[in-house]
Amino acid sequence: MAKDGVVFNDVVKALQKISQYIHKTPVVVSSQADKRSGRKLFFKCEFQQKTGSFKARGALHAVLKAKERSSNCPGFVTHSSGNHGQALAWASQVAGLPCYVVVPEVAPEVKKSAIRGYGAQLVECGAQPQDRYDACDKLQKEKNLEFIPPYDYFDVIAGQGTISLEFLDQVPYLDAILVPISGGGLSSGIAIAAKAIKPDIKVYLVTPKGKKMEECLRTGKRPWEGPPQYLDTIADGIRLQQTGYITTPILQELAEKEVFEMEEEEIVSGMKFAFERMKVVIEAAAGASVAAAFSDRLRSMDSKMVNIGVILCGGNVDINHLPW
Amino acid sequence: MAKDGVVFNDVVKALQKISQYIHKTPVVVSSQADKRSGRKLFFKCEFQQKTGSFKARGALHAVLKAKERSSNCPGFVTHSSGNHGQALAWASQVAGLPCYVVVPEVAPEVKKSAIRGYGAQLVECGAQPQDRYDACDKLQKEKNLEFIPPYDYFDVIAGQGTISLEFLDQVPYLDAILVPISGGGLSSGIAIAAKAIKPDIKVYLVTPKGKKMEECLRTGKRPWEGPPQYLDTIADGIRLQQTGYITTPILQELAEKEVFEMEEEEIVSGMKFAFERMKVVIEAAAGASVAAAFSDRLRSMDSKMVNIGVILCGGNVDINHLPW
Repeated sequence: MAKDGVVFNDVVKALQKISQYIHKTPVVVSSQADKRSGRKLFFKCEFQQKTGSFKARGALHAVLKAKERSSNCPGFVTHSSGNHGQALAWASQVAGLPCYVVVPEVAPEVKKSAIRGYGAQLVECGAQPQDRYDACDKLQKEKNLEFIPPYDYFDVIAGQGTISLEFLDQVPYLDAILVPISGGGLSSGIAIAAKAIKPDIKVYLVTPKGKKMEECLRTGKRPWEGPPQYLDTIADGIRLQQTGYITTPILQELAEKEVFEMEEEEIVSGMKFAFERMKVVIEAAAGASVAAAFSDRLRSMDSKMVNIGVILCGGNVDINHLPW
Repeated sequence: MAKDGVVFNDVVKALQKISQYIHKTPVVVSSQADKRSGRKLFFKCEFQQKTGSFKARGALHAVLKAKERSSNCPGFVTHSSGNHGQALAWASQVAGLPCYVVVPEVAPEVKKSAIRGYGAQLVECGAQPQDRYDACDKLQKEKNLEFIPPYDYFDVIAGQGTISLEFLDQVPYLDAILVPISGGGLSSGIAIAAKAIKPDIKVYLVTPKGKKMEECLRTGKRPWEGPPQYLDTIADGIRLQQTGYITTPILQELAEKEVFEMEEEEIVSGMKFAFERMKVVIEAAAGASVAAAFSDRLRSMDSKMVNIGVILCGGNVDINHLPW
């Protein structure tokens, strides 16, 4: 199966594999955002990626690799009502293989229909994180499917890392990148590739309150009690408290110890800024990284760190229920 | 004052004058939009222009030309609670000259504060179109200001026409352009430049119900009774029923006779598509041109007309009161 670890070359090869199917997302700037931040901000528009989030990169890479490995692959399965579910459904469609997505029964109908829209089979389960894992496990065994986890998976991490290749090609003089973190697939992929291209670049993680990510990075230990918990946050894309078993050590090695832990009102305000001033539709997780770019914590950091990349990770928000 | 008429060379010179201050706005595509339309659509993102609409182009061009003509220009005045008011305020700030904007007392506070935010002086008036003209006239005479009208003005038209220079440079193989029309400054500028570059390109106008634009184009006469009226539409950027005395003959000569007259629900649905699928924040007037691209009328037209430009004219919408 997937090999042992992710190195820069895996990310380079991942981009070669997926680039004909994904968007090279644009980078936008905003003089009003720069004024508010006191730095020069570069926003990487992954909300304009296929399926509305960066997840399309990792899912497609994992699917294409699995298809290469096995000529009679019976299809894929994952658990995610959100961006990874949509992305795997889309990626499977690109690969011409079946896809099953385990989704909590209570998930919004709009998310379920998006997954069905990409031709995947929906399988409903209970509301807790553990319910998903169990249902997914059962389905995988029954149908001999290939399980593609949302983040703790080498090929997914390498796929997400392709963002750094594009971003540092578009803006070679970036000094730092702010990236929202849930399970850590996006941030570990970004860190592996960015640090390989530019060793002195800094990768900062952005989280909602209560994740204890800074403690995890500073102590080098997992501070989280099991089973997996969800944080109480509006930013549903980054509500998982624990990061992965594969992603955590990568981040402990490569990410900066200072974590941007954002308040709920800051997240909403970052999201609102993007809508009103930048005229873009982003989800709350992306709003968190805008908020980080405007934060006192960033303002207090080394002023030689001028050019800041901000990952706008996704745009899948229910526009009928915006948080203002 | 402004010279007699607008020719292609005026538009070329306008772009030279304003290009260092405005954005060359991106062109985006959407496979979902193409599927829905049955054509290949290219969206010109003027909602990402300075001040959130194309109006920045014409206003800045008019201001810079006026400043050139008179070394002691005492400043500018216009009547507009909307995009032209913001644009003239911004343009005057760029030129370092005073600006007065006549705004109906009843206009939303958010629009008033946007105009003040660009350093302009706000002058309040009554709610009818005629009230604005009167107040503006009085102010102009009192302070000897240069009046910059929203559309019926050569330098404004030439400024808006710069969109075509960019657009046909970005997508040289456009077969047609869909453009929302209010007073006609945007559409006449676009038509002058686009037809000069590519004589066989078609320029189609997009309006709310009740404008009678098709009658105006087909008969070559003005079908509107005075005084100027507002249409009852959610698309506040294109609610003026009458087009201008300068713009109308240009459009009678250069625009296609088939007008896309959109229903209110179509306008909202076009706007919603942009938010949900394209992840961009556009105002209802831009939603109208998305709706036109999805319309049966376009579907019924010559199938050899494949590559369609869609002008997303602005993004100044109150995100606290979206129409869904």
